[in-house]
Amino acid sequence: MTQIVDLPTPALIVDRRKFDANVALMSAVRPGLTLRPHVKAHKSTALAHELAKVGHTAFTCATPREIIGMAQAGLGSDLLLANETVDVQRLRAMAALQDTARITVAIDSETTATLAAECGIRDVLIDVNVGMPRCGVAPELAAALASFAVSLGLNVRGVMGYEGHLMAVAHRDEQRSKVRAAMGLLVQCFDEVRAQCGDDCTIISAGGTGTFDLYDPSDPVLARVNEVQAGSYALMDSHYGSLNLPFEQALYVVGTVISVSDGWAVIDVGLKSLGMDHGNPTIDGASVWFCSDEHITFSMKDGRPLPSIGSRVLVQPAHVDPTIALHEVMHVVDQIPMIGVLSRETTTGEIEKGATITERQVIDVWPVNLRHW
Amino acid sequence: MTQIVDLPTPALIVDRRKFDANVALMSAVRPGLTLRPHVKAHKSTALAHELAKVGHTAFTCATPREIIGMAQAGLGSDLLLANETVDVQRLRAMAALQDTARITVAIDSETTATLAAECGIRDVLIDVNVGMPRCGVAPELAAALASFAVSLGLNVRGVMGYEGHLMAVAHRDEQRSKVRAAMGLLVQCFDEVRAQCGDDCTIISAGGTGTFDLYDPSDPVLARVNEVQAGSYALMDSHYGSLNLPFEQALYVVGTVISVSDGWAVIDVGLKSLGMDHGNPTIDGASVWFCSDEHITFSMKDGRPLPSIGSRVLVQPAHVDPTIALHEVMHVVDQIPMIGVLSRETTTGEIEKGATITERQVIDVWPVNLRHW
Repeated sequence: MTQIVDLPTPALIVDRRKFDANVALMSAVRPGLTLRPHVKAHKSTALAHELAKVGHTAFTCATPREIIGMAQAGLGSDLLLANETVDVQRLRAMAALQDTARITVAIDSETTATLAAECGIRDVLIDVNVGMPRCGVAPELAAALASFAVSLGLNVRGVMGYEGHLMAVAHRDEQRSKVRAAMGLLVQCFDEVRAQCGDDCTIISAGGTGTFDLYDPSDPVLARVNEVQAGSYALMDSHYGSLNLPFEQALYVVGTVISVSDGWAVIDVGLKSLGMDHGNPTIDGASVWFCSDEHITFSMKDGRPLPSIGSRVLVQPAHVDPTIALHEVMHVVDQIPMIGVLSRETTTGEIEKGATITERQVIDVWPVNLRHW
Repeated sequence: MTQIVDLPTPALIVDRRKFDANVALMSAVRPGLTLRPHVKAHKSTALAHELAKVGHTAFTCATPREIIGMAQAGLGSDLLLANETVDVQRLRAMAALQDTARITVAIDSETTATLAAECGIRDVLIDVNVGMPRCGVAPELAAALASFAVSLGLNVRGVMGYEGHLMAVAHRDEQRSKVRAAMGLLVQCFDEVRAQCGDDCTIISAGGTGTFDLYDPSDPVLARVNEVQAGSYALMDSHYGSLNLPFEQALYVVGTVISVSDGWAVIDVGLKSLGMDHGNPTIDGASVWFCSDEHITFSMKDGRPLPSIGSRVLVQPAHVDPTIALHEVMHVVDQIPMIGVLSRETTTGEIEKGATITERQVIDVWPVNLRHW
């Protein structure tokens, strides 16, 4: 059996038990089709299959390549491109899959609607700006855009509005009230859009990991959000981890100590194997000094000894989505020990904290097969 | 002919004229084997072939995969792994190529020396710490490590010391004096190492793009640095660009405007197609508001109008090396116009600043074929 200490590094590892716990926790709050898991977080059809097994069979994608790869992997029963594209070749490539997959494309302008129609896309969703300055039509223009789409022969399935600017609001009460205001806009848009579109217009899609449990079923506005586009919850990262969400970090980058000096050690994990937009990664029990392209320099806290050359070190990335996008595969491990520094000795000899040897065994490999665009 | 505006985006583009100018400028200062260009900057054997054509046939690599790929591409006459590895399988894979390639591996400890010898590596370089807390043996231990390596049957070719902490010192006089002090350490180590190793010990390798012209041939210490490991100079980025180096930005990420709102526009270039460790990218004539996974939100400066949906936008990454590592290919363009926002109209119609239509034509594709580890 391959152990963590046998992997060529840098290597992504997934803690299967924490992944399963995260998935179960989310499914309890947003079961089945009330969650539309976001594929951009992991870009892996193997991971997506795990989510489909527990009932989440409709997915959100950010790129045409994700849509096409999901459809080709047999996961195309209800795919949403929650993003605009004006790439005619990619629109046509997605349209060509519609006999075996249902593909819905977000539109937020007459141009994106026209191109979708011209390329043979059948289903669209009106992307509404609910407060974050990014994509999405202004709320007051949503119904007119829906009417225009219908005039082109497009089937408008509903609306989406990503309140991304509210994902990291630290105070839950403040977050709840802001999310409710944003969803108030979205629900109003939906009613106006539906008046243009008819009975197949049913979707109100929003949210993410940071807001997954805010769509209160007893609230007349929030209860109408019928699907949540969360993705990061399954694997988590130190950025989301700081927000007191109930999900646990399940993804690490394993490095190998390649150099030890008087006061610091260096591993072969660097910024080319880590998403760096949320800052430096963390190592349990250690202080990260800095990241280079291929290295992290760190020291140990609390007077602990530096690891020896060849030891494995678990690095917790600050942002999981772009970290995964840098790797070819994720190695799934039965359970990852809760220590930052592993060594062959602690793996094959006595294990701390009552863990068993199987905790470090690689039990599956999930290719990151939906990378690029 | 493919034009910039025809590329699926996000796409890396290289300005061939600026690339050639950067290469010529560097070759004038560090001709032939006095430069050992760093492959980690671009991870492309096609780009490396261009450097070999002008006489730089010895290369620096950061990963075994770069070494192996360069050897397999016929560029293996003198490859240096300027990094430590304790990965036995990768050491053996490199060793297996030594009949057709010369491969020299950096060592900085008895462990790395022993593993190199056990795996059949023939040539090593003593990696000396010249002041940056990362890899490298302490200077006072370099000669003993060389002697140990010789006792294992390894051929010690010399020393390297990367003064990476001095690459971005803004004041040239301060930088010069600090580099000289660091190189004083390295040269002294070399003399001590050579006393242990004999006539094939000749290499004193150091430096990078930020210090390329500081190895003054009239200075008794600096003149002895006989090869410089610069890589970023060929394509440059906005971080190095801020240091008043004579090299020009030759690499951009092309995006497409997918959404325009009242006050901002959005392109399909995001942090998954940009190295983000040096912060946000820049767009000529525009203010970048923020980067998401798949988007940049920006506005135009000086009252200029927002681009229309479908326009192409040139994004200047803050850090070139990790940006390239996110892409599958670089598209080489005859010359890139000096404007941030392109449109099909300005491409096929009248061209500003006297440029000709050929400036936007893709004339070559360089695969980024040495990615990962």
